[in-house]
Amino acid sequence: MNRSYLRRFHASAIFHRIRLEPSISQREIIERTGFDKSTVSSIVSRFAEMGLIERQPKPEANRRGRPSEGLQLSGNSGLLVGVQIEAEAVGFVVCGLDGAVMASRIEPFNGDLEGIKTYVKAGIEAIVSASGSRAPIMGVGVSLPGLVKRDGTLVHVPVLGWRDVDMLDRLKGIAEAPVFVGNDGKAAAMAERMFGACTDIDNFVYLFSGSGVGGALFLDGEVYGGANGLAGELGHIKVVPQGRFCSCGASGCLSAYLSEPALAQEIERLGGNVPNGFASILEGAAAGDEVVLNVLDHTGEVLGSAVSSLINIFNPPIVLLGGNIALAQPYLSVAMDRALMRLAHPAMYSRSTVKFSEISEGMPLLGGVAIALDGVTSLDGSHVLQ
Amino acid sequence: MNRSYLRRFHASAIFHRIRLEPSISQREIIERTGFDKSTVSSIVSRFAEMGLIERQPKPEANRRGRPSEGLQLSGNSGLLVGVQIEAEAVGFVVCGLDGAVMASRIEPFNGDLEGIKTYVKAGIEAIVSASGSRAPIMGVGVSLPGLVKRDGTLVHVPVLGWRDVDMLDRLKGIAEAPVFVGNDGKAAAMAERMFGACTDIDNFVYLFSGSGVGGALFLDGEVYGGANGLAGELGHIKVVPQGRFCSCGASGCLSAYLSEPALAQEIERLGGNVPNGFASILEGAAAGDEVVLNVLDHTGEVLGSAVSSLINIFNPPIVLLGGNIALAQPYLSVAMDRALMRLAHPAMYSRSTVKFSEISEGMPLLGGVAIALDGVTSLDGSHVLQ
Repeated sequence: MNRSYLRRFHASAIFHRIRLEPSISQREIIERTGFDKSTVSSIVSRFAEMGLIERQPKPEANRRGRPSEGLQLSGNSGLLVGVQIEAEAVGFVVCGLDGAVMASRIEPFNGDLEGIKTYVKAGIEAIVSASGSRAPIMGVGVSLPGLVKRDGTLVHVPVLGWRDVDMLDRLKGIAEAPVFVGNDGKAAAMAERMFGACTDIDNFVYLFSGSGVGGALFLDGEVYGGANGLAGELGHIKVVPQGRFCSCGASGCLSAYLSEPALAQEIERLGGNVPNGFASILEGAAAGDEVVLNVLDHTGEVLGSAVSSLINIFNPPIVLLGGNIALAQPYLSVAMDRALMRLAHPAMYSRSTVKFSEISEGMPLLGGVAIALDGVTSLDGSHVLQ
Repeated sequence: MNRSYLRRFHASAIFHRIRLEPSISQREIIERTGFDKSTVSSIVSRFAEMGLIERQPKPEANRRGRPSEGLQLSGNSGLLVGVQIEAEAVGFVVCGLDGAVMASRIEPFNGDLEGIKTYVKAGIEAIVSASGSRAPIMGVGVSLPGLVKRDGTLVHVPVLGWRDVDMLDRLKGIAEAPVFVGNDGKAAAMAERMFGACTDIDNFVYLFSGSGVGGALFLDGEVYGGANGLAGELGHIKVVPQGRFCSCGASGCLSAYLSEPALAQEIERLGGNVPNGFASILEGAAAGDEVVLNVLDHTGEVLGSAVSSLINIFNPPIVLLGGNIALAQPYLSVAMDRALMRLAHPAMYSRSTVKFSEISEGMPLLGGVAIALDGVTSLDGSHVLQ
C-alpha cells in the first residue's frame, strides 16, 4: 500500500462519494471515508482545478462556525467517450461526468487491427458530433475483449486472432484527449460501481458473457488485479471435467458453455438454427423454440454451479450477471436458481444476492466510459484500468 | 476503510515488518510501508509498552543526525498458545513471539462440546508446563474446523454435529489471557504469512485438507472475509457436476474428493483397506498399494482442476497447499501438474507458483498461534480472526 497507490485509491473513493451524495461537504467526506483531512482537502482542490467538481454554499448549512460548502459534479466539465471493442462490433458512447448517455451507436467491425486507429477515430468523431455537444473531450476509455496487462498490452483475443498487442500505442491519437484502456469485464464491473447496481457496494463479483465470458472481482472498493492484473477471468472456471474445448486452449471452462458461440454451436448440434447469433437465440426463446429453451435451461444449470462456487469462494454481498446473461434472464434464471439452492453454502447464499445487470444488457456500453472516468479521476497518471 | 480498520491494518503490517527485518528503524518502516510517520510512531510506542518489541541502538547507525534505533521482537515477552481443534484430535502448541515452537502435542478428542472448556484448559496447562517456561501467556488462539462469523459464532461442523456455537463464550476462562478464535483455513494461511512460505507475499491463495477441506484468500496483505467473514471456503468449489455428495449438503464439491473421509471411502469402495485414516493412506502409498496410488493420482487430477480455476480467478503469485495435501505431495503432484498445464490459463499460470506447505504438513499446529499473534498485535480489540 504505497503512496501513489493510496493517492489513486483516495482520489477514486472521494470522487465516488461526491457522485453518490451531491452537495456533500468536505467534512462529510472525511466522516464517510475515514481519510485524513489533508488528503481529502488536497484531492478536492485538485478535482476543482480540473473542473470536475464545483463548490457551492450548502443549502442546510451548519449554523455554528462558518457556512459549509457543498461539492458536486461539474455540470459542464466536458465529455467522456467510451469505446467498447468486441469481435464483430464496436460500441461508441458519449456521456457527461454523471454517466448520463448523450449519444450511443454500435457499428459493425471487421476485426482489422491495422486499420483500428482510423476506424475508432472516425467512430469517436461521429458519436461526438451526434451528441450535439461542443464541450471538449476529457478522456476516452477503450474497453477491450481480452486480458490487459498493467502496461496496456492486450494479451490474447482468440476470436480475433490478436495476441500481445500494445493497445495504448495502437490507439495513440484517436482523440485530442488522454486515452485509457482496460479489460471489458473489469470495465463493465467498474461501470456498475459508478452508474449501476453496485454504487454503494464495496464487494461484488461480476460475471459477463458476450462473444466470450469474462468478469471482475470488485473487492474492498476496487477491482482486484492479482499478480499481473489478470485476475477475474471467471469465464475460465472449470465447470465440467474433461468438458468442451474452450477458445482459451483448455477444456471444461464456463465460457465453453455460456459464450455466444458456445450456445449457438450447441443449439445447432441439436438441430436448431440461429443464423444471427444471440439475437436469433433470444428470438427463438421468445417464440418457444424447444431446442433453444432446452439449451438455455441447461446453461442456467451450469451457470448456477459456477455462481455457487463464486459464492462459496467470495461470500459476496452481490453477484452481478451482465451482458447476454442479463438479456437471457427469463430463460436461464429458473435452472440457475435451482442449482444455487442445491449447491451454494446456505450460510453464504443467505447473505448473497444474485442480480442481473440493468445497465449492461447485451453490450456493456458504459464500460469504456467507466475506464475513461477512472483514468481522469485517479490522478496517478496510469492509462490502464487495473 | 474506516479508522479502526486502518489501525488494525497498520498495526499488523508494522509488526510484520519488524518480524521480517530485525533491527529495522522507524524510518525504514515508514519507507517500506508508505504509512504516515505519526501512525508508525504511535503503533511502535504501543508495541513497546506492551512488551512486544524492544528498542536497541542500531548497529550500523546513520552517521549524520542522531543515532538511529533498531526495533526487534522482544525475546522474553511471554507465550503464545495455539489450539487446533479437529474432529478426532486437538493440537496444542506453545511458542514465543517469533513462532519458534517450545512444546507441542496432539491429543485425541471425543468431540464433546459440553466438556470442551475443561478439556482445552487442561491441555493448555499441560503444554505450558511441558514447555518449561514460566513466562505469562500473552494470548491463546483457537483454530476451529468450520466457518466462523465476525462475532465468534462457529457456524457448522458437520463431522462433529456442531451448529451455531458461540465459541468465545464456550472458551471463556481457558487461560488467564485473552482468547482469540478463527477458522482453521484462515488461521493456517495467516501462519504461512507469519512463519511459513509467504512471509513476504501479499497475495496468495491457501488450500488446506484434513477431515474437511478449507482455505483462505490472502489478498493485498490480509485475509479477505467477504460479506460475513466466511469467504475462502475453497473446499466447496464445484468440481464435478452432479458429483459426490458432500458433508456441506451439496454435491460435487472439492471436499467430497479431497477430504480424508472422502479418500478413505473411495479407497475402500475399490477394495482397499485404510483402518487408520490418513496414516494408513500414506503407508499404503509408500508401500506401492495400487488402489491407494490410483485414488491419490485421480485426486491429484481433481485438485489440479480446482487449482487451475483458482489461478484463473485470482492470478495469484502463489497457491499454497497445506495439511494432508502437503503430506501426500509425492503421490498427487504428477497428476496435479498435468492438469494445471492443460487447464490453467498460460498468461496466469506462468506467473503463479503452486507450492506445498512446509509448516502445515498434516495438522497445521501454527494456525492457533497465528490467531493468537494476530489478536495480540492487531490493537483493535477484536477476538475473531477475519
